[in-house]
Amino acid sequence: MPGLDEDDARRRFAAARVARLATVSADGQPHLVPVVFAVAGDTLLMAVDQKPKRHRDLKRLRNIDDNPAVSLLVDRYDDDWSALWWVRADGTATVTEDEDVLARARAALGERYPQHRADPPEGPAFTVGVTRWTGWSAI
Amino acid sequence: MPGLDEDDARRRFAAARVARLATVSADGQPHLVPVVFAVAGDTLLMAVDQKPKRHRDLKRLRNIDDNPAVSLLVDRYDDDWSALWWVRADGTATVTEDEDVLARARAALGERYPQHRADPPEGPAFTVGVTRWTGWSAI
Repeated sequence: MPGLDEDDARRRFAAARVARLATVSADGQPHLVPVVFAVAGDTLLMAVDQKPKRHRDLKRLRNIDDNPAVSLLVDRYDDDWSALWWVRADGTATVTEDEDVLARARAALGERYPQHRADPPEGPAFTVGVTRWTGWSAI
Repeated sequence: MPGLDEDDARRRFAAARVARLATVSADGQPHLVPVVFAVAGDTLLMAVDQKPKRHRDLKRLRNIDDNPAVSLLVDRYDDDWSALWWVRADGTATVTEDEDVLARARAALGERYPQHRADPPEGPAFTVGVTRWTGWSAI
């Protein structure tokens, strides 16, 4: 299996429109949701479209509180399997209501997604410090 | 957020070509890979294209040995966010080298993927008993 080097993996991930975020609950249950995101170096920026006081209602944020280890996946599927590739970003997540981080996440997301420019997420922000980029491509 | 009923969620999942499988290691690290699969009722069938004796080399199978709780996600992304939807299948995974289960997985995968008809996975098979189908659609 041809692995992708780190720069290629990061570049492919950063160009994708959607990723899937895996978090783990205190009792070891995985949880998956699709997320929009922006990449700044080895940091992933995300935000939640929900008022801060209610954000602990979201399973992904409760899980990050209990276990900050997360994994995100970007993948390309095609019925022609020679076109398959995927990139995984493993790292540590931080949820923050810090206004500077939220402003940075909003700006980065707004550059990528017109929906976020029109209607910025209320927060909180959450960031992932990526400790490992892993990728594979069929060709 | 309009949730999908269980039948709709299962139907959308079953029609997808690829899903993302989240497993969790003994020390609580999530792991994500894209997978091809077949759905039979509330059971997901998958197989690994690797000789049985070497299958413990695969992180997803080691994780399932340590913690059988898994989650799989199918999602549709579109820059028109009114077209977004996703379905998550949460359940319990079992890895098996049982020839009957492997034959059933091979047959089900072969029906869906011509590549598997031409070159069946060597095994092992792994199945997921889905305990919860959860889905969301923007419209």
